[in-house]
Amino acid sequence: MAATEASKAEIRPEKEYDVIIVGAGPAGCMADLCLTTYGFKVLHVDNRPTTTEAGRADGIQPRTLEVLRNIGAVPYEEGKAGLAKRMINQGVRVQEVSFWDPTETEKLARTSRAPSCPDFIDVVDNYTLLLHQGLIERSFLDEIESRRAFLPANKKAPAPHGNVFRPYEFETCSTDESQEYPVSATFHHGETKEQFTVRAKYLLGVDGAKSLVRRAISGGQVGDGEWQGKIRMLGDASDIIWGVMDVEAKTDFPDIMSKCLIHSRSDGSIMVIPREAGLVRLYVQLQAEAGPDGKQKHYGRDATEDICKSRARKIFEPFQLEFGKTAWFSVYQIGQRIASNYTLDHRVFLGGDATHTHSPKAGQGMNISMLDMYSLAWKLNMVEKGVASRDILLPTYEQERKSVAEELLKFDKAYSTLFSGRSPKSDQLTADATKAKARGAVDPELFIETFKKNAFFTSGCGAIYFANQLNALPDSELVKDYPKKGVFNPEGSNLTAGQRLLPGKVTRAIDANQVRIQQEVKMNGAFRIHVLAGDYDKSKSKLASFDKFLDSSSSFFNMYRPKNGVSSSIVFNTHETRHIEPERGSREPNYNPFFDFLYIFATPHTEWDIEALPYNARIYREHIYSDDIYDRRVGKDAKAALHAKYGISTDKGGIVVVRPDGYVGAVVSFDQDGFEALNAYFAGFMSGSQRASL
Amino acid sequence: MAATEASKAEIRPEKEYDVIIVGAGPAGCMADLCLTTYGFKVLHVDNRPTTTEAGRADGIQPRTLEVLRNIGAVPYEEGKAGLAKRMINQGVRVQEVSFWDPTETEKLARTSRAPSCPDFIDVVDNYTLLLHQGLIERSFLDEIESRRAFLPANKKAPAPHGNVFRPYEFETCSTDESQEYPVSATFHHGETKEQFTVRAKYLLGVDGAKSLVRRAISGGQVGDGEWQGKIRMLGDASDIIWGVMDVEAKTDFPDIMSKCLIHSRSDGSIMVIPREAGLVRLYVQLQAEAGPDGKQKHYGRDATEDICKSRARKIFEPFQLEFGKTAWFSVYQIGQRIASNYTLDHRVFLGGDATHTHSPKAGQGMNISMLDMYSLAWKLNMVEKGVASRDILLPTYEQERKSVAEELLKFDKAYSTLFSGRSPKSDQLTADATKAKARGAVDPELFIETFKKNAFFTSGCGAIYFANQLNALPDSELVKDYPKKGVFNPEGSNLTAGQRLLPGKVTRAIDANQVRIQQEVKMNGAFRIHVLAGDYDKSKSKLASFDKFLDSSSSFFNMYRPKNGVSSSIVFNTHETRHIEPERGSREPNYNPFFDFLYIFATPHTEWDIEALPYNARIYREHIYSDDIYDRRVGKDAKAALHAKYGISTDKGGIVVVRPDGYVGAVVSFDQDGFEALNAYFAGFMSGSQRASL
Repeated sequence: MAATEASKAEIRPEKEYDVIIVGAGPAGCMADLCLTTYGFKVLHVDNRPTTTEAGRADGIQPRTLEVLRNIGAVPYEEGKAGLAKRMINQGVRVQEVSFWDPTETEKLARTSRAPSCPDFIDVVDNYTLLLHQGLIERSFLDEIESRRAFLPANKKAPAPHGNVFRPYEFETCSTDESQEYPVSATFHHGETKEQFTVRAKYLLGVDGAKSLVRRAISGGQVGDGEWQGKIRMLGDASDIIWGVMDVEAKTDFPDIMSKCLIHSRSDGSIMVIPREAGLVRLYVQLQAEAGPDGKQKHYGRDATEDICKSRARKIFEPFQLEFGKTAWFSVYQIGQRIASNYTLDHRVFLGGDATHTHSPKAGQGMNISMLDMYSLAWKLNMVEKGVASRDILLPTYEQERKSVAEELLKFDKAYSTLFSGRSPKSDQLTADATKAKARGAVDPELFIETFKKNAFFTSGCGAIYFANQLNALPDSELVKDYPKKGVFNPEGSNLTAGQRLLPGKVTRAIDANQVRIQQEVKMNGAFRIHVLAGDYDKSKSKLASFDKFLDSSSSFFNMYRPKNGVSSSIVFNTHETRHIEPERGSREPNYNPFFDFLYIFATPHTEWDIEALPYNARIYREHIYSDDIYDRRVGKDAKAALHAKYGISTDKGGIVVVRPDGYVGAVVSFDQDGFEALNAYFAGFMSGSQRASL
Repeated sequence: MAATEASKAEIRPEKEYDVIIVGAGPAGCMADLCLTTYGFKVLHVDNRPTTTEAGRADGIQPRTLEVLRNIGAVPYEEGKAGLAKRMINQGVRVQEVSFWDPTETEKLARTSRAPSCPDFIDVVDNYTLLLHQGLIERSFLDEIESRRAFLPANKKAPAPHGNVFRPYEFETCSTDESQEYPVSATFHHGETKEQFTVRAKYLLGVDGAKSLVRRAISGGQVGDGEWQGKIRMLGDASDIIWGVMDVEAKTDFPDIMSKCLIHSRSDGSIMVIPREAGLVRLYVQLQAEAGPDGKQKHYGRDATEDICKSRARKIFEPFQLEFGKTAWFSVYQIGQRIASNYTLDHRVFLGGDATHTHSPKAGQGMNISMLDMYSLAWKLNMVEKGVASRDILLPTYEQERKSVAEELLKFDKAYSTLFSGRSPKSDQLTADATKAKARGAVDPELFIETFKKNAFFTSGCGAIYFANQLNALPDSELVKDYPKKGVFNPEGSNLTAGQRLLPGKVTRAIDANQVRIQQEVKMNGAFRIHVLAGDYDKSKSKLASFDKFLDSSSSFFNMYRPKNGVSSSIVFNTHETRHIEPERGSREPNYNPFFDFLYIFATPHTEWDIEALPYNARIYREHIYSDDIYDRRVGKDAKAALHAKYGISTDKGGIVVVRPDGYVGAVVSFDQDGFEALNAYFAGFMSGSQRASL
């Protein structure tokens, strides 16, 4: 009775939403934040009564930080830090990994070190950021709350702070395409048991490795953490068991503030991860296996915190290790598995741990999970706003994200093999291969090569998408069959479709601010058309042609427009309006919310004028730049570092299409052929029928 | 009656404080924040009922940002942004100045542009940050509130949020050195008129150009904004009148997002400053003067907002200018004046506008005012904690800060002359001097030289202190008369005592984080001893000698210690304690809170071990670095960029003493002679009597 009365005061879900999200871990939070930004009406439920209090996932990789920075921050209250900066303020940075092993003379010694994000990876935040999952979740919830204020009235349903209803248990869901809201889902309140049935256009199941959403759509029987219904979890039933703890530690082990892989001679391995708030995370290997004496040597899932601590002390020997407060402790066993399907009907989608599980050691899971939702959200947005083809765009979610998860599993296996039992010796990381080989060690060149490749992947920067309609790679159907050669991916281009745009600094002409080109358009659901115009004088006639092209009714810019009043997002969707266009009255700027344009000249901005540019360029006056800032990766000789980095000649210029998620979609020549190639590219997946359903 | 009852609920000042601060503008806020950080009990009053709502001072210069970053931020509440980052988030950046003038063919044209902080100035935040004074004040108040939580119970008096009592009117003050709390001050509540008398050790008058504190100690009669008592305000009674407004503006003037100096042919001048929140600040020149026809042409102090707007529209012609909301409007007249004394008794100190007034155009006033208090606070701290000589240290406040204010006034005059009437033409900024000279223009080389010098000063990086006990310059008494030559300021050194430490990036050995050396020790009241040890192998024996030196009872490190339990600050005062010293039990780290040590090796940290360093080095394990990060200002050839930048050879090394305010105090050789020179330097102003009064 008391519970019922209490629940009366609670906000309850409405009957219809655009999207239901089940699970408010990092992936669910990302989905909510993105979809809210795009203006969707979102019901978000989680079966936990609060955000994570301590522990769990904790590593944010460089590419994820780049994404978080791009998601940006809207004003919330004075003095509040935005999403990425808040996490960076609260966390600690891992910039190096140390390898510790027994040696001939010492029980334990540092045998080598390696940067966690090697310098060859061109990324601004060249470190792994560590902070506990609750801090990450709460950063998201505050930012979601802040953006909900921008939602139009018909999209804003009452909800708790951060839009997450707790504790709500998902029960089941079904899809009926004949309905306006095809998905029906049932939940109950975790305490009052009150049941709710809600309809929506989509449902996202990001409810973890034992996903109830997956079970609901897959069928099949409960196994030991896996399901074999319509969706199968493929992979190894690994028996690797880990004890994990976030603890205060006092030690004379010198690298306690670094990430370390420690292999003891006979007591197993530990991974050390520095943490915020004076904590350290220890992953203690706990396989149940027989020792040389035939007795069980390692503990399994029954290991207690004390057992983990005493094993940790053993492995740390001869160094001392004393424990203070424990913030979090857990023992778990995880298999390397991947879902055979991420969706069965393109209405109910799975992502995050519901689709892929693997060892936590590489700090990848949360990152890939968040990016699953980041990737899905803009596709749903374009489809629902009526500018993209549902049948083409939605299947790319599973295709692109599953390939990344598969890569992760491959990497996870390689990583485990490389570091299982023994770590590379110091001399294996030198160029003196002969010496190392003579001693029968792993080929150091191979090792370094593997390490580099892995670092590229673990940084998130190496998560590559393959050829499809969105990625105009040389082996894509569009490019392979394209009648004119050299129009897509013109000679010299260093950018690759399906990879993230390389970062670089430029000078913004409007205010001479030195800015990072990859962060100039914040996540707003739009494609970003970068016109690298090259030398100003040489660009003039081409700019005039491009202006004419954009004005023509057959250009992608005019072909693929949403219905009147429909925007790509509720924030970051306006252009600098402080300026009076001289043409005002006779000609209004003709923005298309799904395309943002950036113009970058190789000539310094002091040598040309925004006002002299063609109309369709100058209406994006806050996105006009000169490429005149030094970049150490390019060197002093290149006058226009960004052109040089992208492999675009300052004589010819080039056009780089970047997808709403920051991936390069297409690189085309800056000429009439290139303009037509843009039309061909967008025709591959966009839709001019303006059949917005939102 | 109602007012009295209401005031009962209010928090009232106590009877005794360490320091009273009158005025809660940026200078007063800075004083409060610094003194709170140092653990003082502070009464802070302001006669305004709230923080600034809009307008007023708004430009934060690069050096001030460096200081704000160094003041740091302590955790306040989850998601709250720290001091500097919060301001940077809220403001806009000015990186360029445009000059607009009438030309032969056009009514108004951009005749040149210049970077606001030219590249030759080595500073991280190479721009002026603009945001209105209230946002700045509130950032300070939140940070003060956050630090008050760290105060010991006997220093924490109840106070409103941010520690400012409002509205409190200062009445008068007097000093009696025979008392334990020599200063007595009287105030009354602005509404209830209730009177308070409070005693303190010091009183800081930062109550603006018409300072009541100045009047109280100076005597003299009220004049037109100046006083001629014991303290005289020296300078020009300028009749320059400005109309200032923060407004929304819509215009086709292309540089509305940049800082601009616009001179019209016959309607006067305007300075345009971009502002946060879509505003623009316009400084409209309003001198009352006769036009060519003998009639009054410009309006004076009686100018209304409409008059300013219509003048602005005139000056902007032929560009259109439409106004939206006005956030702030003011008309004011300011003379260039400087106080003859900043204090009469070293108990009541003046600072900020109470000591110097000048034109607001250069965006200097608030910066220099804040830095006045930043400079005074650490000196009061050392004196009150008993480790420095009152008679030597306190007079350096007026000496150092007055010289900067004098420099500012000189600059202000030069700036006005350079930009009065006409701005430099574009060709005067090119190397083609002949051409410009032929046309009778200002010598462009001279102009560029002047501009550079001015930019260095306006950035705040050129605020230089002269030789005194704190600044071991070649012409200081200490160095001039020092028996051994070449020990102070060793050959090759590029650092100058009395100037700020040049910034640079290094790798912190403890966690391999890439960090900025100038920000590694946050403002904690301590001197920072940078041991640039050079090559690791070559440094070994010198490090061992330095270790022995620091252990000796005659070293500055042991000579100048506060009483037991007295610390230099309440935050940023601990060293990384996660580590168990192998010597623990037999030997405890012997920290002196007034000295922090940083060790920087030219050899990468992967080639040496913290554990192998001498005890007195290794106890500062969080401040041990390798100098292995590329710096474009040094170039690719230098292996150790920071050593190279500082002009310290990697063979010999060097020791750089940085004052608690980030200024270089002394540079000495890294050898026994240098160690003794450190003793001589600190003997010049520090005190071993441990006569702490706090």
